[in-house]
Amino acid sequence: MYSIGIDMGGTNTDLGLVSEQGAIVERRSVKTNQYTNFPIYVKALADAINEMLQKHGLAADALEGIGIGAPNANFYTGCVENAMNLTMKGILNYREEFGKYFPTLPVAICNDASAAAYGEHIYGGAKHLNDFVLFTLGTGVGSGIVSAGKLLLGTKGAAGELGHIQIVPNGRQCSCGLRGCVEAYCSARGIKQTYAELRAAYDSLHRADTIEHTEGWIDHHTPLCDISCRNIGDAANAGDPIAREAFAITADYLATAMATAVAFSAPQAIFLMGGPVEAGAPLMEPLQVAFRKHLLYTFEGTCTIQRSQMNTNDVAILGASALIKMIV
Amino acid sequence: MYSIGIDMGGTNTDLGLVSEQGAIVERRSVKTNQYTNFPIYVKALADAINEMLQKHGLAADALEGIGIGAPNANFYTGCVENAMNLTMKGILNYREEFGKYFPTLPVAICNDASAAAYGEHIYGGAKHLNDFVLFTLGTGVGSGIVSAGKLLLGTKGAAGELGHIQIVPNGRQCSCGLRGCVEAYCSARGIKQTYAELRAAYDSLHRADTIEHTEGWIDHHTPLCDISCRNIGDAANAGDPIAREAFAITADYLATAMATAVAFSAPQAIFLMGGPVEAGAPLMEPLQVAFRKHLLYTFEGTCTIQRSQMNTNDVAILGASALIKMIV
Repeated sequence: MYSIGIDMGGTNTDLGLVSEQGAIVERRSVKTNQYTNFPIYVKALADAINEMLQKHGLAADALEGIGIGAPNANFYTGCVENAMNLTMKGILNYREEFGKYFPTLPVAICNDASAAAYGEHIYGGAKHLNDFVLFTLGTGVGSGIVSAGKLLLGTKGAAGELGHIQIVPNGRQCSCGLRGCVEAYCSARGIKQTYAELRAAYDSLHRADTIEHTEGWIDHHTPLCDISCRNIGDAANAGDPIAREAFAITADYLATAMATAVAFSAPQAIFLMGGPVEAGAPLMEPLQVAFRKHLLYTFEGTCTIQRSQMNTNDVAILGASALIKMIV
Repeated sequence: MYSIGIDMGGTNTDLGLVSEQGAIVERRSVKTNQYTNFPIYVKALADAINEMLQKHGLAADALEGIGIGAPNANFYTGCVENAMNLTMKGILNYREEFGKYFPTLPVAICNDASAAAYGEHIYGGAKHLNDFVLFTLGTGVGSGIVSAGKLLLGTKGAAGELGHIQIVPNGRQCSCGLRGCVEAYCSARGIKQTYAELRAAYDSLHRADTIEHTEGWIDHHTPLCDISCRNIGDAANAGDPIAREAFAITADYLATAMATAVAFSAPQAIFLMGGPVEAGAPLMEPLQVAFRKHLLYTFEGTCTIQRSQMNTNDVAILGASALIKMIV
């Protein structure tokens, strides 16, 4: 059997035809923001699905179902509800709309981070784990929680917003309107801000032109706006002390959120994915120490920290297609 | 059908014969700390159960099962594992031990706060709710989480330790060894400490002997060690400004933890029980405001705050007996 995974982003919608083993055997992409009419948009997706099926000589009954990862998605209703970053407004009923083209196929929809977590369970490093949490670090911080082998959904399927738990009272302004959220510290933007604060403190003690530049470190003349989270990660790996400290501070914040997640759902593992995690040792090493420091003693030795085993380019489609396994 | 609910505390173990409607028709109590031998202790419990059955002319097959609320209980194994406050040490296998006396009866075991949450679901205010969280405020702060109609258990059944999530980085020392835990601020002890801090600040501005005493307020000559959380609640209800502020501050801390719980499992309601909640308006009114302030906008209007509908004297036994409904 095959399944369809659809990753609905504000700009692009990526579709994949996914084999039982979790290989994406065919891909298509549709420009989400070119559509303001939802039925026409879904027709374009249905056409893309039929194209992929035809190319591989498959009929619709070779599909187990259609899984969709999307912002503000409600697993129970099959709808995306008032997502802010979409050109299509209101309540978008995917289940009903896809039913017009594939009446016999189940349609499962969920927010993208939860879908990624379920993808890790079906195809990735959490195949044999029934209790785990996934944090996705990137532009924002998302999360998905699997408990007793099922996605933790909550009311309206909205559970798992661990990017917006408060770790610093009256802390940094977060894009969500709250202060002190995990996302304000552990997203790529948060790490850049931590780096900028550390450099400002450093530069107030040392004039930039007196600092000798070392190969691989970030030059103190580089404007902050030209420095990416990846640059900071590369510099940290080259030994840049400010970049290393930025990741160590990030690790402490992330460990706080991870310890909270453990107190909540007692997972066997916490998986991490996304750009900042690619930095490797400068994040992961202080994270191991900080996690043990923040963890309630009763959970000692019960939860490992793991990097996602999903390919960054595949996770969105695979996670979406994995959702089908929740309902069949 | 009837069930047995057992509340295992460090000092006393309370047993109840519970009707299908959630009435405790008979009670017994056994001194936990008089036992160092686990099989002899369970025999005493089994004798108490048989006594209750006989008194009501019931046979063992009138029972649906035996539910136990206990510290460090593991739902999956049926064991209490290395609980610190018990005279009986090591791994206590309740399921196996009760099987010697009631071989056909299912035995369900869980920590007491999770049991209380499930009791709220089966017998209390959460009968029609599938997603909710219960906070129990008392000597400590416990919690139980129900998601999709089931207790969130996690690995070893240890989930739901929301009393030990960090709400203040490097905050107050908690009895668990960590700092800044919910319990350090929102337990009866935490509220007393907040009151003491506020009074110290107040007294540093005003000499105690110059403060006129008002009916119902706490006299500034009363030693702090003689003031209970209940005294502070009574004074707050009588308008004592320091007591009122102590509860308002507590409400803000608790709201932070509640908003974290919502971000995690997206509950339809958060239930509160325990001594500090009995204070009523001085806690509940600022709590409503603070909860809205700390809540992620996507959850606005999705989660109500409710006081537990379980009787304080019954909740431990009823919660334990409700656990049977998880497995039959």
